Amino acid sequence: MNFCSACGARVSLKVPAGDHLPRHVCDACGAIHYENPRLVVGALPVWQERILLCRRAIEPRLGYWTLPSGFMEKGETTAEAAMRETLEEANARVEVGAMYTLFSVPHVDQVHIVYLARLVDLDFSAGQESLEVALFDEARIPWDEIAFRSIRYTLDHFVADRRRGSYGFHSGDIVLPRPG
Amino acid sequence: MNFCSACGARVSLKVPAGDHLPRHVCDACGAIHYENPRLVVGALPVWQERILLCRRAIEPRLGYWTLPSGFMEKGETTAEAAMRETLEEANARVEVGAMYTLFSVPHVDQVHIVYLARLVDLDFSAGQESLEVALFDEARIPWDEIAFRSIRYTLDHFVADRRRGSYGFHSGDIVLPRPG
Repeated sequence: MNFCSACGARVSLKVPAGDHLPRHVCDACGAIHYENPRLVVGALPVWQERILLCRRAIEPRLGYWTLPSGFMEKGETTAEAAMRETLEEANARVEVGAMYTLFSVPHVDQVHIVYLARLVDLDFSAGQESLEVALFDEARIPWDEIAFRSIRYTLDHFVADRRRGSYGFHSGDIVLPRPG
Repeated sequence: MNFCSACGARVSLKVPAGDHLPRHVCDACGAIHYENPRLVVGALPVWQERILLCRRAIEPRLGYWTLPSGFMEKGETTAEAAMRETLEEANARVEVGAMYTLFSVPHVDQVHIVYLARLVDLDFSAGQESLEVALFDEARIPWDEIAFRSIRYTLDHFVADRRRGSYGFHSGDIVLPRPG
């Protein structure tokens, strides 16, 4: 960030009065530009015993498999974000159930949420950001080609919980060095 | 948003190729400036049977009572945010337990998270953003002076769960008209 999005003047990194972290502050109008982590919300859509996965058509992790998910938008709820992303990436309609996992991913300034979901029908196909979309039995999940740790851990929890017959909420952290 | 934070040129609201929502796009360098909901994370600190609340010294809801909470920062986990906010607003150290509630609050583009927490000791006091900090028995909680619905609902869940002796995770939406 180099310029103030309100007035167009230069910004400087400084700690505002009463604050404890450096922020981008406008040299002219004084506006403080906060940056915060982003929410990535998705669904784990199930049809009978099978799980719907999408193969990514975009970076990062192009070609790897993931659950339908993406950045939450202003004006929506987390459950609405999960439904919208499933529609966009898999052209699939789901009934969203309980919030299932939440992982903090501080090295990329994100929080990942996944909902349990039930596919409404088998009318799905690859959306713009997917190369293909398919249903997987547990034994056929491409475990070595899962795009993101939060998705891998979510699938791990799901498989274990299904075995136990009880689906609790799981939260945790994925702590890695920051990139670069 | 009027100007590009990268190059300082004017931005226009337009739907980028492959997108479905209008974004602020730079007329000169083409940078797309996404805006997303923010996370507000807090703790429900308990000492024996009593709950720690803070009376707000700042707007919105100046003078009303709340649990210590605030905007999550980049580079931290949700649990770290809950601990930091408790330290800042109540000068209190807590052991953070399970994630307890999560509410989408789309009319202000926020998601509110509260953790169960145990006060480590009774050494607490009002931080910069609090007028006072105090421990409340259930019967003395100022129910009519709670600052935010998500905090009110979190306290409602806590009181009910304590009665049952079982603290589950609760998520939901607080849907109101957008302000203005």
